[in-house]
Amino acid sequence: MHDLNRTIALLTRTPAALDALLRDLPDEWTRRNEGENTWSAFDVIGHLIHCEHDDWMPRVRTILAHGDAQPFPPFDRWGHVKAVQGKSLPQLLDELIRIRAENIAELRALNLSAADLARPGRHPGLGIVTLSELLATWAAHDLNHLHQIARVMAHQVREPVGPFRAYLGVMQCNAHGA
Amino acid sequence: MHDLNRTIALLTRTPAALDALLRDLPDEWTRRNEGENTWSAFDVIGHLIHCEHDDWMPRVRTILAHGDAQPFPPFDRWGHVKAVQGKSLPQLLDELIRIRAENIAELRALNLSAADLARPGRHPGLGIVTLSELLATWAAHDLNHLHQIARVMAHQVREPVGPFRAYLGVMQCNAHGA
Repeated sequence: MHDLNRTIALLTRTPAALDALLRDLPDEWTRRNEGENTWSAFDVIGHLIHCEHDDWMPRVRTILAHGDAQPFPPFDRWGHVKAVQGKSLPQLLDELIRIRAENIAELRALNLSAADLARPGRHPGLGIVTLSELLATWAAHDLNHLHQIARVMAHQVREPVGPFRAYLGVMQCNAHGA
Repeated sequence: MHDLNRTIALLTRTPAALDALLRDLPDEWTRRNEGENTWSAFDVIGHLIHCEHDDWMPRVRTILAHGDAQPFPPFDRWGHVKAVQGKSLPQLLDELIRIRAENIAELRALNLSAADLARPGRHPGLGIVTLSELLATWAAHDLNHLHQIARVMAHQVREPVGPFRAYLGVMQCNAHGA
């Protein structure tokens, strides 16, 4: 249970942190990406919202209801693209804060036991994963995308920093598939 | 001047974002590092404070007063170690918010012209850099360390996430020297 509390502590803070970082920042920071088929900070917020709807809690419910007898529902990594069209970044940030709070409330209400956390589920690509691993990944996924947002934003000033670029590790990061 | 506004927009937001992310998080997230001679999130906040004192504005002042005739004052990358001893993370976050606000107020009051921004300074390792490059780097340096904090925190849950590790780019990041 201690681990779950640690996970929830992070999950409750990330949306506010992203809000403090991104709300009302100039579009040059938030709407630019790293090139074709990459995401801007705006896109990443859309993806995080999409995951709140279609990834984490649906998978939690699948494990609790079916264990590993039924694979997780399919998840579309580009599923947010349609959902964010016509929305502003402040709207998306509001939405992320709201739906994350709802999901954490639902997660807490499940009152998961150690036995629940050990239950296996079936990931379509990875095979057997436990509920505990899924929940730890929910928090790690926030950090993964915070790491990405910092990198994508730093990318926007790779020219203005001139020779300092050599000292900025974030500008040497090769994305690691995220 | 537009670029400077963009830089200031980020600089004013980072401390609040770090505060929202880190304040009162369990120590397992904030006080652990990636191994010997690496930094925890706590250490990074100490470094950011140290840079506010000893790096950015002292270099700005050096350029404005001496151009490239005088190299930047020396900067100790481990200079924060003594300064953070005995302090709590909330104390450091308060300090970062305060000193950043002071520095931004000083920066704005300089009312820098395009000619000022083009002025050269002398970096002890990089040689000639402009004031504009230094200021762009101040913001990029925030992102560099946000990127680092996300990675260091993700490192703490590399075991709990189990097989999901393969999907988390942040856990493949090799630090790039930061």
